[in-house]
Amino acid sequence: MKPYAIASPDPLLSAAIRHKIDRKTKPRGALGRLEGLAHQIALIQQTLDPELRQPHIVVFAGDHGAARAGVSAYPQDVTWQMVENFLAGGAAINVFTRRLGLDLTVVDAGVNHDFGKRPGLIDAKIAPGTANYIEDTAMSAAQRDAALERGRGIAHALADNGCNCIGLGEMGIGNTASASLLTHCLVGAEHDAELYTVTGRGTGLDDPGLYRKRSLLAQALQRGGRTHDPLEVLVQYGGLEIAMMAGAILGAAERRMLVLVDGFIVTSALLVAHGLAPAVLSYCVFAHRSQEPGHRVQLDFLQAEPLMELDLRLGEGTGAALAFPLVQAAVDFMNEMASFESAGVSDQARSPG
Amino acid sequence: MKPYAIASPDPLLSAAIRHKIDRKTKPRGALGRLEGLAHQIALIQQTLDPELRQPHIVVFAGDHGAARAGVSAYPQDVTWQMVENFLAGGAAINVFTRRLGLDLTVVDAGVNHDFGKRPGLIDAKIAPGTANYIEDTAMSAAQRDAALERGRGIAHALADNGCNCIGLGEMGIGNTASASLLTHCLVGAEHDAELYTVTGRGTGLDDPGLYRKRSLLAQALQRGGRTHDPLEVLVQYGGLEIAMMAGAILGAAERRMLVLVDGFIVTSALLVAHGLAPAVLSYCVFAHRSQEPGHRVQLDFLQAEPLMELDLRLGEGTGAALAFPLVQAAVDFMNEMASFESAGVSDQARSPG
Repeated sequence: MKPYAIASPDPLLSAAIRHKIDRKTKPRGALGRLEGLAHQIALIQQTLDPELRQPHIVVFAGDHGAARAGVSAYPQDVTWQMVENFLAGGAAINVFTRRLGLDLTVVDAGVNHDFGKRPGLIDAKIAPGTANYIEDTAMSAAQRDAALERGRGIAHALADNGCNCIGLGEMGIGNTASASLLTHCLVGAEHDAELYTVTGRGTGLDDPGLYRKRSLLAQALQRGGRTHDPLEVLVQYGGLEIAMMAGAILGAAERRMLVLVDGFIVTSALLVAHGLAPAVLSYCVFAHRSQEPGHRVQLDFLQAEPLMELDLRLGEGTGAALAFPLVQAAVDFMNEMASFESAGVSDQARSPG
Repeated sequence: MKPYAIASPDPLLSAAIRHKIDRKTKPRGALGRLEGLAHQIALIQQTLDPELRQPHIVVFAGDHGAARAGVSAYPQDVTWQMVENFLAGGAAINVFTRRLGLDLTVVDAGVNHDFGKRPGLIDAKIAPGTANYIEDTAMSAAQRDAALERGRGIAHALADNGCNCIGLGEMGIGNTASASLLTHCLVGAEHDAELYTVTGRGTGLDDPGLYRKRSLLAQALQRGGRTHDPLEVLVQYGGLEIAMMAGAILGAAERRMLVLVDGFIVTSALLVAHGLAPAVLSYCVFAHRSQEPGHRVQLDFLQAEPLMELDLRLGEGTGAALAFPLVQAAVDFMNEMASFESAGVSDQARSPG
């Protein structure tokens, strides 16, 4: 693998960007979070006039061997059935991207199903799912590297086509369980995130189901250990779609794309990417805080403040898509709002008296 | 004035709406706040297939006599200058409504300026601003009633034209001060909201400015008293744009329109409307929690949980506009998402084991 070449944006333009924001016809700071967002995007793009070109949601799908051991409320077949639902246009992410004018691509990173050649689907299958990490490593080092490289290549290909804003989503029955193990390992390096605090109900486990999931994950940890190495943790606990998303985040940052981070699973991929190249964070916008309890732990670790908190726990990139209008609004006010000078509005803010 | 005829929607359809939401291809509850929103809108419209027709942001502008006494960081002229900015398309609310395809109308409820006849502006001027409430009542009972009726009529006219979703916004230098007095009076009937806890920096007062504002509002209260009567409080403390928004909220609820509530000032108008007809709340969606501290007190009093918290404090209806895509997403998933049956996805959620 070519090493990742990722640096934070040059801060030289920062003062000029701030000045442009402050001359808009509004009290300073009155657009709140949108002002910080506009500043971040302008800095990433190294311009006072940022723009979002061909924004794209990419949904990575993969199966998890541990799903057959019972870490999810749904059967493994739902992964491929939902991919079919994406391709037919009937899932939530289809509905949201259609309305918002976002491109949507689905990537088969490792689904246990043969889809054939299909429009809207990239076949990047590394294997028909991971192995069951309770008994063995989830994937080989070679599979991991292949997944990272495919993800990186997918981001690069989008950039080559003119896209500068990518939102990540995922589908994979059992993948909150992998995300919990990754979070326990990678956040645990600095915080002490106990396994049970980062293990939630996923698609909707009841209490006995949740206790069983925690018990299975504890068994997996006994086998695989609490490594803090972001590459090793993928080998131990998967999943293929998570590894591929980590590669896509790294590839997107290499090409200075804005990355819209969805919920718990996508953020677990970001933990891997961040472990390999901490500067990726400069390119990330955190769309929402998911209802899955481990997401809060991840966000605290990354010192990230998401834009929204809507109690979503669906995945598919739905949170990233729903946050997109806020990102667009930040860019739009920067480009289209009048300044005090151009509009003839007094900027004589004064202390009264 | 004709009495307000407002009842909460008939809950008969509630179970059928819930069933339709639960059969969509997602775990139950996984769309979080959007599910409650879809349920609310379907119930308001008494249908399983809700739609948003001709969504419209209406910005009510008015001047405040107290602005000349020094309750704001900006001079009073900024009110009419910003109305000109709205009409020229250069303000934040113009940028956001253009992008989102929302209609925008500005209403002169009482600006101290002669605009003449202008496209996009409704002349509903009751007076060229309120009187300075530190010295005298802000408006007469006749002016208040005229403002309420004009607001009601504006909402009815939109409904007659086919609009079923209205977002409210405002512009008026000094109007956070009026909103603080209204909140202190109307929330104080049940909670004990001290004046200083509901008085904030508005457009950006520094510390001495904030202390002066609180001192001036305490003087106003000594003159006018802490009445809990929603009609009397408008007479005492204004403003004309707030009274007209209260009328618009009532008129919209009479016509079963969805009402997008913006920030602190709009919510103070809602306190008045709620005092006159508590069922208006069934029609309201709370767009965001503003940075102005009194807004949190209002929302707690109304037991309202806003959709977003973006530290906005701009007004103009910008929060209402920015929340609109979430409202649209709620309606869209209800209408367009596949069901488990139609998509052939297993709904065999089970406790693993």
